[in-house]
Amino acid sequence: MTTRLDVTEKILEKKILRGFKWSEIAAKVGLSKEWVTAGCLGQMTFDEAVAQQIGEIFDLTDFEIALLQVPPYRGSLPTQVPTDPVIYRLYEIVSVYGTTIKELIHEEFGDGIMSAIDFEMDITRQPDPKGDRVKIEMSGKYLAYRTY
Amino acid sequence: MTTRLDVTEKILEKKILRGFKWSEIAAKVGLSKEWVTAGCLGQMTFDEAVAQQIGEIFDLTDFEIALLQVPPYRGSLPTQVPTDPVIYRLYEIVSVYGTTIKELIHEEFGDGIMSAIDFEMDITRQPDPKGDRVKIEMSGKYLAYRTY
Amino acid sequence: MTTRLDVTEKILEKKILRGFKWSEIAAKVGLSKEWVTAGCLGQMTFDEAVAQQIGEIFDLTDFEIALLQVPPYRGSLPTQVPTDPVIYRLYEIVSVYGTTIKELIHEEFGDGIMSAIDFEMDITRQPDPKGDRVKIEMSGKYLAYRTY
Amino acid sequence: MTTRLDVTEKILEKKILRGFKWSEIAAKVGLSKEWVTAGCLGQMTFDEAVAQQIGEIFDLTDFEIALLQVPPYRGSLPTQVPTDPVIYRLYEIVSVYGTTIKELIHEEFGDGIMSAIDFEMDITRQPDPKGDRVKIEMSGKYLAYRTY
Amino acid sequence: MTTRLDVTEKILEKKILRGFKWSEIAAKVGLSKEWVTAGCLGQMTFDEAVAQQIGEIFDLTDFEIALLQVPPYRGSLPTQVPTDPVIYRLYEIVSVYGTTIKELIHEEFGDGIMSAIDFEMDITRQPDPKGDRVKIEMSGKYLAYRTY
Amino acid sequence: MTTRLDVTEKILEKKILRGFKWSEIAAKVGLSKEWVTAGCLGQMTFDEAVAQQIGEIFDLTDFEIALLQVPPYRGSLPTQVPTDPVIYRLYEIVSVYGTTIKELIHEEFGDGIMSAIDFEMDITRQPDPKGDRVKIEMSGKYLAYRTY
Amino acid sequence: MTTRLDVTEKILEKKILRGFKWSEIAAKVGLSKEWVTAGCLGQMTFDEAVAQQIGEIFDLTDFEIALLQVPPYRGSLPTQVPTDPVIYRLYEIVSVYGTTIKELIHEEFGDGIMSAIDFEMDITRQPDPKGDRVKIEMSGKYLAYRTY
Amino acid sequence: MTTRLDVTEKILEKKILRGFKWSEIAAKVGLSKEWVTAGCLGQMTFDEAVAQQIGEIFDLTDFEIALLQVPPYRGSLPTQVPTDPVIYRLYEIVSVYGTTIKELIHEEFGDGIMSAIDFEMDITRQPDPKGDRVKIEMSGKYLAYRTY
Amino acid sequence: MTTRLDVTEKILEKKILRGFKWSEIAAKVGLSKEWVTAGCLGQMTFDEAVAQQIGEIFDLTDFEIALLQVPPYRGSLPTQVPTDPVIYRLYEIVSVYGTTIKELIHEEFGDGIMSAIDFEMDITRQPDPKGDRVKIEMSGKYLAYRTY
Amino acid sequence: MTTRLDVTEKILEKKILRGFKWSEIAAKVGLSKEWVTAGCLGQMTFDEAVAQQIGEIFDLTDFEIALLQVPPYRGSLPTQVPTDPVIYRLYEIVSVYGTTIKELIHEEFGDGIMSAIDFEMDITRQPDPKGDRVKIEMSGKYLAYRTY
Repeated sequence: MTTRLDVTEKILEKKILRGFKWSEIAAKVGLSKEWVTAGCLGQMTFDEAVAQQIGEIFDLTDFEIALLQVPPYRGSLPTQVPTDPVIYRLYEIVSVYGTTIKELIHEEFGDGIMSAIDFEMDITRQPDPKGDRVKIEMSGKYLAYRTY
Repeated sequence: MTTRLDVTEKILEKKILRGFKWSEIAAKVGLSKEWVTAGCLGQMTFDEAVAQQIGEIFDLTDFEIALLQVPPYRGSLPTQVPTDPVIYRLYEIVSVYGTTIKELIHEEFGDGIMSAIDFEMDITRQPDPKGDRVKIEMSGKYLAYRTY
Repeated sequence: MTTRLDVTEKILEKKILRGFKWSEIAAKVGLSKEWVTAGCLGQMTFDEAVAQQIGEIFDLTDFEIALLQVPPYRGSLPTQVPTDPVIYRLYEIVSVYGTTIKELIHEEFGDGIMSAIDFEMDITRQPDPKGDRVKIEMSGKYLAYRTY
Repeated sequence: MTTRLDVTEKILEKKILRGFKWSEIAAKVGLSKEWVTAGCLGQMTFDEAVAQQIGEIFDLTDFEIALLQVPPYRGSLPTQVPTDPVIYRLYEIVSVYGTTIKELIHEEFGDGIMSAIDFEMDITRQPDPKGDRVKIEMSGKYLAYRTY
Repeated sequence: MTTRLDVTEKILEKKILRGFKWSEIAAKVGLSKEWVTAGCLGQMTFDEAVAQQIGEIFDLTDFEIALLQVPPYRGSLPTQVPTDPVIYRLYEIVSVYGTTIKELIHEEFGDGIMSAIDFEMDITRQPDPKGDRVKIEMSGKYLAYRTY
Repeated sequence: MTTRLDVTEKILEKKILRGFKWSEIAAKVGLSKEWVTAGCLGQMTFDEAVAQQIGEIFDLTDFEIALLQVPPYRGSLPTQVPTDPVIYRLYEIVSVYGTTIKELIHEEFGDGIMSAIDFEMDITRQPDPKGDRVKIEMSGKYLAYRTY
Repeated sequence: MTTRLDVTEKILEKKILRGFKWSEIAAKVGLSKEWVTAGCLGQMTFDEAVAQQIGEIFDLTDFEIALLQVPPYRGSLPTQVPTDPVIYRLYEIVSVYGTTIKELIHEEFGDGIMSAIDFEMDITRQPDPKGDRVKIEMSGKYLAYRTY
Repeated sequence: MTTRLDVTEKILEKKILRGFKWSEIAAKVGLSKEWVTAGCLGQMTFDEAVAQQIGEIFDLTDFEIALLQVPPYRGSLPTQVPTDPVIYRLYEIVSVYGTTIKELIHEEFGDGIMSAIDFEMDITRQPDPKGDRVKIEMSGKYLAYRTY
Repeated sequence: MTTRLDVTEKILEKKILRGFKWSEIAAKVGLSKEWVTAGCLGQMTFDEAVAQQIGEIFDLTDFEIALLQVPPYRGSLPTQVPTDPVIYRLYEIVSVYGTTIKELIHEEFGDGIMSAIDFEMDITRQPDPKGDRVKIEMSGKYLAYRTY
Repeated sequence: MTTRLDVTEKILEKKILRGFKWSEIAAKVGLSKEWVTAGCLGQMTFDEAVAQQIGEIFDLTDFEIALLQVPPYRGSLPTQVPTDPVIYRLYEIVSVYGTTIKELIHEEFGDGIMSAIDFEMDITRQPDPKGDRVKIEMSGKYLAYRTY
């Protein structure tokens, strides 16, 4: 059976062969590069119109296009603690700064969380004379614990 | 023996008893609230001047003030996969979006990483009519793999 | 230092010695028994008025009452897979029915989740001639993934 | 060899291709949507009549229909701590509220458990002006520890 | 605070010092040696009368006697895979024979389980000229999966 | 290469297709149903005569029959903590009653273990007006620690 | 409460302070140095006479001497994969040679195991011009799987 | 691609089909049965002459013979804690006797280890009227920690 | 789909068949043997010119050559704690000397790390009359924590 | 009881209070700073003369000085995957470059390992106009697998 993982691998293979960029694909479908990349990597669901466009870009079959519209079993990493250095640095930030972020969200908002669902992200280059910087902006809705 | 963890617990106890805010403490020592909170939670090293100020705010002993200047064994979470919902949401973002962030850093910069050491972070409230949002901005130096 | 865990243990000891019931304590403070029990077990934050009442019921000190108002590091179980049979049965339900619940939430609502923050729960006895049943009702806000 | 997992994957592929809904399939075989979905996902055993109906709906072979009647090795998740956000939220509820549920079952019933075998579940939409809610009702027979 | 674990340790210390046998203690309180041992080791709840008798045998305080009547957080082993050879042999039986037991329960009864709650156990010496044998008899209620 | 696991899967497929029962197969080869099932599931070694009979019942090739006579790498479960409810209940018994069984074996026999090798098991139905019960009898040789 | 671990630590402290050797202690009580060391480290049970002698050597209390006669919860290592290099080398031998040992035991004896209970061990220095060698001899009773 | 694991599986299949014994194969190539078995199971490297002989015995291709001469990624077990009873008994010995072996090596040799590389092993049958015994002799070079 | 792992396996197979050495391949492409080996094993990215040369040496297809230029998901080991003795010795050095290295980096440089990205490594033979030695030199840029 | 860990903590506390440097302490006792630091952190054994000197520097008791001469249970990190960024970078090097190092040791030396026992290490500052670098040199005896 064709799985969502097969679709991801097919997309990655076509992307390399044809030299596409994620930002170009995102521009074509009119969405952010973060959302489109996450969807192509099997972590998000596209609506029918977008799935059709993605299907045309990567020569997907009808069933593969249908799969892009089905909520996937999420989680893109093969191990609990990621081994890839790029991704590990993010995990390290959670490990080192996690309690700090928790304290500051509680100080500003009270007892609740930043949603990872009603959430968006922006990754950009920050020019810097001492060496350019990666900037990651995250924005998630604040959700308070419900008292009942 | 007094450990850095004991200093963290003493600071937290004093902070609750006296009703301090992290942002007030940060303002007093003239650094960002993110850095100061991380240091007070045992994840960063303060220089002597700041350690003295922190020591006065929280009535620390000379040895406790010295401990604030010693690089700690970092890692603020008790388990590999964090159980606290605020911190888990960050881990979930790494799990779901990790490969996306990796792809986009590589697309923009080439083969390298965002440093988690030459790094800073800013946590703010983003007003929104549909419910305010938590905004987390991260900025880390881009480091390329060295070819040799 | 006194931690939130110490407060939980003190509350449990007093509760056993004095023969209190969670439902009675909940009635006194005018909240649901589920919320009050979770708070007394160190998983929720009480506002000042409720914390004062809890403090009087269990003879807590001012600092212990203050601790009840500070968002705790959540997670009430000592192991990833719970060993206690009551709690394991809930974990088994997640293991066996998890993908079923995911499918049915997606079928009814689309791609999103049931919040565990804007969430409430009700545990009641369901009389049944073949043996009474435990009924657990959960209700959480539906949150859709944000497209951007 | 064809395994139960192969049957599950075949059913999922046919369901997507033909646009079936779990609730429609359940209505056809005259059982709840929760039970039928769990069975189609490889977690429950159908009796011969139901297995035949499921087999017709999804064009299964005789051996595949026979497999639906054999108790499967249960457990539908690939990791101990689920990575999918929908399912993780359920795990988080067990982690945060597990000890609360244990306390309240013991307070109401005494020392025993809620069965996860003599068990049923109902998932519905709860309309709410502030945003619809997911409602999950669980009902399991109370079983007391036997003294001997 | 005194915990159930403290009571277990106190009972074990007294038992060694005074040379009691579990079977003698069980005979005094009129219950099986398996149940009484499990309770004294912190895994079962005694009713008030039995708890009083246990309290007298081991010089327990009133609070310790009260603790014996409170359902404990069960699980008597310090690691997921037990390191003690006696207990590991039981785990090995589950590992080697687990699928066999599952097959034979399903063959005899259908799709369901042997309860570990409505359960009793008997451990005896089986004289044998080639070396005596340990005999463990387990009996648990059969519970069928509920169709709904 | 054909592995023992392949033989197990072939046997299971044939058994379902032809509607065999483990007890019938055991009766044909003149051994207990527990031993024969464990062997067919890849956990035991058959001698040549029995392997030939099993081979005829399930149409095995000569190499597959040879494999049945080779000691396998034992362990029949895919995870350390079993996820299947039938098998988990056995693991729960080890978790909850493990220290009890250890105490009672030591009280009756001294410091030693119940062998899981020189071991046999019997699984039967125990009729009971309140609902039939599963009875599992285990018998293993007592082995004392050797002093030297 | 005094535990067996406390007795082990007390013995180790006394042994260092007084400069005893395990082989001398073993000679005094007339048993092998391997057995006596294992017992002093909390892994074996001594009979009353030996426990008394050990008690005199290390100034143990009556209760500590009694504890030496009670079967301990075995397992002397703090982690599943040992971190100490001496002990890791043994684990590495199991990891690298485990399947070899299994094959050769089966070739010589048939389907069964080497007992780790009816077992003894001898550790000696093997003089060698290229550097002395550590020699470990293990001898365990062969146990065949019982057919039934 | 053909991997070393494929070679191991091919050797095992041929060995069963042709009824070879490890000791016979070892005799043919003039090395110990322990070394030859470990090499055939993919844990050791053969030199060219021996690899050729092994290749002839098992009809290996030139590439498979070349693979036998390449240092493999060692580790012959599928799990950290081995599930097979023969191999588990060895792991249990490490768990129970590990600290004992460490103490006695240090007492005899000082601070250092027994090498698992400059190492050999001998597995033999030890006739015994009470039941034959498995004897495993290990000999590894003593290596002292270097002071610098 | 062809993955980077497939390219690694193809390179390893060709290398064995043709008897190449890593140092020869490195010399051909004009880079260090450490970098080239890491790239061929799937851990580094080659630029187009080098990828073409590697492709010619190992008869790679155009897509395989393209894959060598795409940043891989790094991490070359199958388990968290490596089982291969060569690699385990490195892990043991981290385990035993890790805190020492941390102390000495902090003493010399202050609070910061040695980069594993802006990093190079050199592995050489160190002749020694008592037995040659392996010398591993690592050099990584010092990165200080940023104060903000 | 005083353990080796207590001695380590006492040494660290004194070192901070008195402002000692590891390199100064090493100079006093005439050994390398790497060895002395490792010993003070509880990972190495000092001979009597050095232990006495260390004892005088840190005001240790006679028993604490004796403990410094007893081989410790090695392993200086609290988790399998280290959380501290300095130490994690070393672990990442093992993860990413482990197979590379293995290949190059085998290419230069044949099938064997670099000893982590007959081993020394040197950590120095490497001045560099683009930012100073940390240099770690490791040297371990090559040990070949013994054929027998």
